[in-house]
Amino acid sequence: MLPPATFRLEAVDHGARAGTLMTRHGAVRTPVFMPVGTQATVKTLEPRDLTTMGAEILLANTYHLMLRPGAQAVRELGGVHAFMGWDRAILSDSGGFQVLSLAALRKISEQGVTFRSHLDGSAHELSPERAIEIQTLLGVDVMMSFDECLQYPATEIEARESMERTVRWAARGLARRAELAQGGETVPALFGIVQGGTYPHLREDCAKALREMPFEGYSLGGLWVGEPPETSHALVAADTGLLPTQKPRYLMGVGTPLDLLQAVANGVDMFDCVLPTRNARKGTVLTSRGKLVVKNAAYAKDTRPLDPDCDCYACQRFSRAYIRHLFSAGEILGMRLASLHALSFMVRTMREARAAIVSGTYGAFQRSFEERYASGDGLMPALRESA
Amino acid sequence: MLPPATFRLEAVDHGARAGTLMTRHGAVRTPVFMPVGTQATVKTLEPRDLTTMGAEILLANTYHLMLRPGAQAVRELGGVHAFMGWDRAILSDSGGFQVLSLAALRKISEQGVTFRSHLDGSAHELSPERAIEIQTLLGVDVMMSFDECLQYPATEIEARESMERTVRWAARGLARRAELAQGGETVPALFGIVQGGTYPHLREDCAKALREMPFEGYSLGGLWVGEPPETSHALVAADTGLLPTQKPRYLMGVGTPLDLLQAVANGVDMFDCVLPTRNARKGTVLTSRGKLVVKNAAYAKDTRPLDPDCDCYACQRFSRAYIRHLFSAGEILGMRLASLHALSFMVRTMREARAAIVSGTYGAFQRSFEERYASGDGLMPALRESA
Repeated sequence: MLPPATFRLEAVDHGARAGTLMTRHGAVRTPVFMPVGTQATVKTLEPRDLTTMGAEILLANTYHLMLRPGAQAVRELGGVHAFMGWDRAILSDSGGFQVLSLAALRKISEQGVTFRSHLDGSAHELSPERAIEIQTLLGVDVMMSFDECLQYPATEIEARESMERTVRWAARGLARRAELAQGGETVPALFGIVQGGTYPHLREDCAKALREMPFEGYSLGGLWVGEPPETSHALVAADTGLLPTQKPRYLMGVGTPLDLLQAVANGVDMFDCVLPTRNARKGTVLTSRGKLVVKNAAYAKDTRPLDPDCDCYACQRFSRAYIRHLFSAGEILGMRLASLHALSFMVRTMREARAAIVSGTYGAFQRSFEERYASGDGLMPALRESA
Repeated sequence: MLPPATFRLEAVDHGARAGTLMTRHGAVRTPVFMPVGTQATVKTLEPRDLTTMGAEILLANTYHLMLRPGAQAVRELGGVHAFMGWDRAILSDSGGFQVLSLAALRKISEQGVTFRSHLDGSAHELSPERAIEIQTLLGVDVMMSFDECLQYPATEIEARESMERTVRWAARGLARRAELAQGGETVPALFGIVQGGTYPHLREDCAKALREMPFEGYSLGGLWVGEPPETSHALVAADTGLLPTQKPRYLMGVGTPLDLLQAVANGVDMFDCVLPTRNARKGTVLTSRGKLVVKNAAYAKDTRPLDPDCDCYACQRFSRAYIRHLFSAGEILGMRLASLHALSFMVRTMREARAAIVSGTYGAFQRSFEERYASGDGLMPALRESA
C-alpha cells in the first residue's frame, strides 16, 4: 500500500518554502490556498471552475458532512470525491472547531465531545477515534487530529490543560488510524495540530510532543482568534521553527492575503479561509489593488473589470457595473462571479508566491505585492459619469 | 443599412416549420426555445453556459431593465449585449405584461400606461412609442409592440376594446420606429402581437389587421392564461393559419414541453417560458422521462444523473443524490445545476424537433417524445438502499 501522502521540499528562500504534497488524488504544489467546500461544495462554484483557476486541493468540513448527508452515506456514494465530482485532493478538518462554534449542548470530557446538531437537535459524539473514522469514511486525502479549540482569551492553566489534552487526543487518533489501516482500510494522511493558545512555551511544548509522533504534517491551530497580529506572526514563526522541515505546515483558517504572505515567509505551506468567498457573496472582493466593494452605487457605470490583473472569467467578461447590477438586483450570478474572482485571486497569489520562492526572490515579491495591495490604484470609481 | 432581421423558412412538415432568423447577433435556428434573462441574467447561469447548450437567443424583460439599471444606463454601458456579456441574439418583451402583473397604481389610457415601480414606488410611463424607444436604447435584436394584456376571463366587449387598442398601439410603435430609424438609430426588428383573448373572431380580426403592417414577425399573446388547453391549441392553429408564412411566429410565455411540441405542429417558431428554470430553482427538473422532484428524500442515495439522455454538465458530472444534498443543504449550486439541466433539455428538445421537421418525420418525433415523457421510466428511486 502506498503511503497516504508524501511531501517533498523543493526550495527554501530564507524562511519561505516551496514543496509538493503528493496525494492519491494528485500533486498539491505549495504554498497553497485551499478553497473551502464546507458542505461538499465550494459555495456557488463547480469543480470545473476550481480546476480552471488551478486549485489542486479543497477543504471539506467534517462536522457539516457527518450531519448531512452523513459519513456513511458519503461512503456508500463512493466517497466525497465522487460525491461532489472533484478528482483532485481534499483535506478535511476534524470537526472540533465547528462543534465549538455551531453545535448545541456540548459536553467535553477526556473521552471526547457529545453535542446536538444545529440542524435538527439530533445527538452526536465526536472523539479522537470517531473523528478519524468519519474522515476515513469520507475518503479524504488528508485528515486532521481531533483537537480542542481554546477560547480566547484563556488563562495559562486553561491553555495548558487544553493543549495537553490535544496531545493525548493526537496519539489516540494515530492509534485508531493504525487499527483501521491494519483492518484493510485505505486511510488518509493525518496531521497533528499545534495548540497552546497564545502562550509561546505551551505551543513549544505541544510542537515538541507532536513532532515525535508519525504525522504526515502539522497544523497550527488556535491563532488569529483575537490576539494582536504581531503576536500571531511571532507564534507562527516559533511553531514552524520547531516542526520537522520535511513535513508540510498548515495554518488553519487564516486570513488576509497579507497575512498569508507573511506566514509563507515564516515557513507555512498550506492555508484555508472562508473570508474571501464569504465577503465576495456580500459584494466585497479582494483584488491585486486591495478590497473593492463592488455592490456600491459608485460602480454603477464603471466598465472596468473587478481586477485588471486577473485572468478569471468574471474579470475577462464582465464589468464592475454589471456585477454591481447583479448584486443590486439580488441575482445569484453576482455572488458566483465575485466568488470566482476572489478564489482565483487567492489561488494565483499562492502560485506566484511559489514561483518567487523557487527563483529566490520571495522577499521582493512580498514587498511588491504589499505595495500594490495597499495602493488602491484603480479602485476608485471614475470621477465623471460617462456620456 | 441592413434590415434589423430576416427570416428564411427552410422546411415545412405538415404544419411544423423549420427556419432561420438572421439577426445582427447571428443566426437563430427555429423552432427555438429562448431562455429568459429577466434582469440581464438567466438566473444562476453565465453566458458561456448558454452558448455551450446551444442557445442562440435570449429574452430580456423591458419592464425590469427600464427600472434597474435603466434603459439609458444600459445604452451608456454599450447596450444589453455588452452589459451582460452575451454576443448572440436578444429579444425583449414590451413591458406590458410585467406592468400588469408587478407594478402598482397603474392607469391605462389610450395614450399608454402610467405606473409606479414595484421596487421603489417611482413613477414611470410606458406607451407604444416609449416602449419602442426603451427597447431601442437597450439595443436588442427583436422587440415587441406595446400591447394591452387582457385579464382572463374577459367579456367579448372588453376583449374587443383591448384588441382594437393593441392594433392602434401596434401602428404607433411602427411609426415611432420609423422615426428613430430616420434619425439614424440602429433599430431592432419589431413583432406585432395578436390579442383578442379566447374569442376566435377577435383574434382573427387582430391577425388580419396586423398582417397588413410591416412587422418582421408576429407574437401570439394572451393565451395559456386559464382557458382549457384544447382551446389554447385551437387558437394557436387559427392564429398561425392567418399570419404570413414567411414571417416568424412567437408564442409568448408558453409552456410545458408537450405544449411546445404541439404548438410547433401548429406552426409556431419561437417560445419562451420561465417555468423550467423557476421550477428547477425549487428542486423540480424536466427530464426526457417527465418531471423529477430531485429535492425529495427518496433520491438521497440515487447515483443516477438527473436525465440519462442529457449531455449537460449537471448530468455528466453529478448524481441525483448530490444535487438532492445541495437542495437539502440550501446550497446555490443545486439551483444552478438544476437550471443548467432544465434549459439544456428545453433547448435540445427544440433542436431535435427542428431536425425532425427537416427530415420530414416531425409527427413520429412528437409521438415518440410524448410517450417517453409520459413513461416516467427511471424516475422512481431505487427500491433498495445500496449496500
